[in-house]
Formats: sequence, structure tokens, C-alpha cells
Amino acid sequence: MAPTTSRKTGTNGYDNLDCSVARTLEHIGERWTFMVLRDAFYGVRRFDDFQDSLGIARNILTRRLSKLVDAGIMRKEPYQEHPPRYEYRLTEKGRDLVPILTSLLAWGDRWETENEPPVRLIHTTCDRVMHTQGVCSECGEEINAFNLRLDPVPQIVVERALTANLAAHST
Amino acid sequence: MAPTTSRKTGTNGYDNLDCSVARTLEHIGERWTFMVLRDAFYGVRRFDDFQDSLGIARNILTRRLSKLVDAGIMRKEPYQEHPPRYEYRLTEKGRDLVPILTSLLAWGDRWETENEPPVRLIHTTCDRVMHTQGVCSECGEEINAFNLRLDPVPQIVVERALTANLAAHST
Repeated sequence: MAPTTSRKTGTNGYDNLDCSVARTLEHIGERWTFMVLRDAFYGVRRFDDFQDSLGIARNILTRRLSKLVDAGIMRKEPYQEHPPRYEYRLTEKGRDLVPILTSLLAWGDRWETENEPPVRLIHTTCDRVMHTQGVCSECGEEINAFNLRLDPVPQIVVERALTANLAAHST
Repeated sequence: MAPTTSRKTGTNGYDNLDCSVARTLEHIGERWTFMVLRDAFYGVRRFDDFQDSLGIARNILTRRLSKLVDAGIMRKEPYQEHPPRYEYRLTEKGRDLVPILTSLLAWGDRWETENEPPVRLIHTTCDRVMHTQGVCSECGEEINAFNLRLDPVPQIVVERALTANLAAHST
């Protein structure tokens, strides 16, 4: 699918990759948007409750909620007719952000928190304090920077390998 | 640990939560920063190679690389003395971003890509096309929005539950 921006295209040969990932980051990467999502995961649904919880300006909150509704991450549902009032609830697409948000939390707790993490995640199935681990969907092994490969291999990596190879043979 | 910004504090009772997560988002949330990281994961190390690959302005690239070095996500190493030239390599902290980046990819592929994803991830251990799954570090079950709980429970959620309870009893 075509990238959504018209930036100058480099030679990496995998420009399409940034399409879905960059848009995901656009959805959750903004600080307030992330905090609205976090509240939504903990059951906050009404405009005034988001505002009370976050201490955020009404116009900014309106904009963030609208963007999340437009992105299909939240949906707007009436809960009162006179005057009309709406609740904001996570959609399936929104709930599917859980592994990303909790991976962010795990990394932040490991690398950016000097003291004990202020909150803990409990996995209600096993009732233990946990963090999210990323595993291979096929075999279940924990993934890391050394056991993953992109297919096709980006052009720049091929070029780099060829250059390194030529350099090795010319010495 | 204290939040790094002086924003108005809401009543959610878990303001500290945004500390580590918000800072993680600050590291990777910016589009170019994410793309620099992506290239780094695929073996790009030199300034000119990042620039060739991404088609990014030199001053922006310099700024992004410096921020990543300052954050301890990349490190700068000399590879040539005359004139001095440096490589940029991921640190352990940087490599530990893999589960986040690949979770973003999985979500984007599922929800934001209309056609076949342009690239696939291969888990080299089992040699299969995979996506990253988030599981509980303690029991290995896949996590989702319904089997996680935050401890302590945010104040706003407690208040909401009490209000709902009172409303239920007054009808």
C-alpha cells in the first residue's frame, strides 16, 4: 500500500514498512492520546471523567477523542438523550493495542524507572505480577534483536553486505 | 519517580504511570526517530548510510541520532581517525525495543494495511513467518484487555465503581 506522505524516498527498498507502523505511532504516539487510551482501558468512558482524571483542556480532549473515533480505536455511544450525552468506548481495534501499551510499560519500567515501578500489572488468569513478553506467534519463543529477520531483506542491507564483502576480499 | 513535566495533575491517582511510558513514547514516537531505529536494527551504522536510506535532511538526522545516544538507546563509536568518523550502534537498551517495534508492526499489519503486508518477519529459530504476540511473563498466556489489572487500581476507577454502585442501589 502506498505511503501516505510524500517525503523524499530513500534507497532502503522497504519504504512500505513505515506505512502501517508510522500510522500506529501517529495514533498512540501523542502524549495526551496515550493517556486518554490508558484511562479508557481502566474504565473511564465519559468526557467529564476523562477531563477530571487527566486535567486536560476541553478542546484538546475533544480533539483527541475525535481522532481516536475517526481512527476506529474508540466509538461514541449515546448514554443520555436530554441533553444528548455520549460515552467513549474502546473498539476491538482499540483493545488490540494492549500488547503495545504494556510492552511500552515493560520497557519503561526496565530502562527508565530508577525506583520500584509505581504500578504493577496483574495477569488475572494466573493472578501474578507480570510484565508483557514478546514471543513468536508460531513457536512461542521469546523474540529479540538477534532471532528476527525481515523478508525481503532491505536493499540497503544487501548493498552494505556486498560492500563489506568486496572490502574483505580486497585486503 | 516524579513525572518530568509540570502538567496539571488530574485525580486519577496513577500519574506516576505516565512517567516511564511517556518517556518511552518520547524516544520512539517521533516518525524519523522510529525510522532511524528501524534502519539500525537492519544493520545500518553510518551517518551517510542512514541518510541514503531515509532521504532525511542532515541536520534532522544529526539531531535524531544525538537524542538516541543521549537516551542510551544508541552509542557512538569511532571507526576512522583521519578524518574522525563514527558509527552508531544499538545498545542493549536499544535492542530491547524489539518487542515494542514488532508489536507496532503486528497491530499495523492487522488494522491499518488493506493489502498483503509489504514485508514479513521471519523468526530465525523456527524459520517461520511470524508476528509478535504479547504474553504473560509468568504463565505464558496471551494477554488482552480482559485479563490484565492494574495494582493499585487507579482512584478514578474506584470512584466510578462507587458511583455506579450508589446509583444501582438508589433505583
